[in-house]
Amino acid sequence: MVLTILGCYAATPRTMTNPTSQVLEIKNRMFLIDCGEGTQVQLRKHKLKFSRINHIFISHLHGDHFYGLIGLISTFALLGRKTDLHIYGPKGIKEVSLLQLKLSNSWTSYNLYFHELTSAESELVFEDEKVRVTTIPLKHRVYTNGYLFEEKTGERKLNIEAVENYNIDAAYYRKIKWGGDITLDDGSVIPNAELTFDPLPAKSYAFCSDTVYTETILPIIKDVDVLYHESTFLESEVQYCEKTMHCTATQAATIAKKANAKHLILGHFSTRYDSIERFKAEALTVFDNVEVADDGKVFEY
Amino acid sequence: MVLTILGCYAATPRTMTNPTSQVLEIKNRMFLIDCGEGTQVQLRKHKLKFSRINHIFISHLHGDHFYGLIGLISTFALLGRKTDLHIYGPKGIKEVSLLQLKLSNSWTSYNLYFHELTSAESELVFEDEKVRVTTIPLKHRVYTNGYLFEEKTGERKLNIEAVENYNIDAAYYRKIKWGGDITLDDGSVIPNAELTFDPLPAKSYAFCSDTVYTETILPIIKDVDVLYHESTFLESEVQYCEKTMHCTATQAATIAKKANAKHLILGHFSTRYDSIERFKAEALTVFDNVEVADDGKVFEY
Repeated sequence: MVLTILGCYAATPRTMTNPTSQVLEIKNRMFLIDCGEGTQVQLRKHKLKFSRINHIFISHLHGDHFYGLIGLISTFALLGRKTDLHIYGPKGIKEVSLLQLKLSNSWTSYNLYFHELTSAESELVFEDEKVRVTTIPLKHRVYTNGYLFEEKTGERKLNIEAVENYNIDAAYYRKIKWGGDITLDDGSVIPNAELTFDPLPAKSYAFCSDTVYTETILPIIKDVDVLYHESTFLESEVQYCEKTMHCTATQAATIAKKANAKHLILGHFSTRYDSIERFKAEALTVFDNVEVADDGKVFEY
Repeated sequence: MVLTILGCYAATPRTMTNPTSQVLEIKNRMFLIDCGEGTQVQLRKHKLKFSRINHIFISHLHGDHFYGLIGLISTFALLGRKTDLHIYGPKGIKEVSLLQLKLSNSWTSYNLYFHELTSAESELVFEDEKVRVTTIPLKHRVYTNGYLFEEKTGERKLNIEAVENYNIDAAYYRKIKWGGDITLDDGSVIPNAELTFDPLPAKSYAFCSDTVYTETILPIIKDVDVLYHESTFLESEVQYCEKTMHCTATQAATIAKKANAKHLILGHFSTRYDSIERFKAEALTVFDNVEVADDGKVFEY
């Protein structure tokens, strides 16, 4: 599981800091999460292949999370893309995207599917044989969802030595990997547990930006491997959190601790601070395993 | 008159090339012309003060000319702007801008005025005591206008020596600068021509992007000081011009020559070419005074 941060700063794009966007590579799928202005240039800069992106998840319709979307949609068309593109985001994202295409008398060379979200409850929005994505309803100034990306438990690992000892034909390997027992020619049954090892544990990633401190997300992100949680402010500016509906580093770390997350990545930093390391220092007073995001940073798990 | 090119490349923003946007400083006014994605970052990069921009002129609603507008409008609000902002552009620009603000539950801290254009004829869109801006109807795949920025002829220059010789009181200087004759106490009339020099010649700048080759613009831009004209292609790719409704460097130079422009700046380059100097070389075969735009380049006249 590889997470590339394209941008992790709040409010407006600046010379050295980009608004929110990140790419999650999980089980060989590449998901784009949020798409602030300049995302397509960040994708180029970090040499991430446009053509591998088939699903884009938008948390909410504030500019620093989606003003780069229409440019990316247009560039996909200019590049002659043929593959379907799926966009998940709050209701309204379809109307505004199509209006912009209409005004420029443009159309896409590919099928563009909008999956508009309105539910206040967590819901499954994407599922294939290896990955599942559910929403994490957040509390912000507009309708906002985080997203939980979960690997499905994979096939069991073949115990090659055992399989060869029993002289089992390779034609049965798939059945064994899927958990089946094997009946030998002499009628004896070899239980699957003798022929396989447990699969690699399924990994999970929770993206939670933007939100005020809310424990309602805890049941959804419980035991998550990696939690990206916004921390726009430090505790010294906690008085801004209620009005702007953002969190401090301490609050993000509290959520990580209560959710029993393994790793916490902090992001969505206000540019008022001189160093993002201050966010890490503050969060470490509450939770042990803290990293700070930064534009261009790559996390591997 | 100072022109700063923020971006001058066609189609999509890339790591090293930006879509169309430029800043014209004329008679101490600062006008933003077109606003492709990433324009606000380019403004910061080139240290152009956001607060000096009160008028934005958008040529057409293709993404590479206006996808940066909503981000700039939002950033102005985040910066707490109070001054009125005027936006000139094709009909539809208001609807799409307001829809984006509405979806993000945002509003501006300043008055935002949209001047939507629909006319196929050249029209005066801005005028104050020093500068006049008229549209240059262009021919492109969507409704498009270039813009002609003209300094008004300034006050006449005082001939201090002559004025002092006649012992004229300073209270009359303003009248003289405005072209008035002076009657001395003895009844004799001193004609203005004896008391003043001609004012500096009024300068003009014509922005023409995007368009197919069209001589209908010649009467509007006749004798212009500086003509920025798109040259998306070289003559070797002239076959693309009709379908995409763009020009070659040769065609741009032909317009400059026929319009009797003093300077030609080429821009809106397709990124298919290895060097933009090739555009200059081609245009120089038709017209003498050619420059190529490039992101970050500053032209002074």
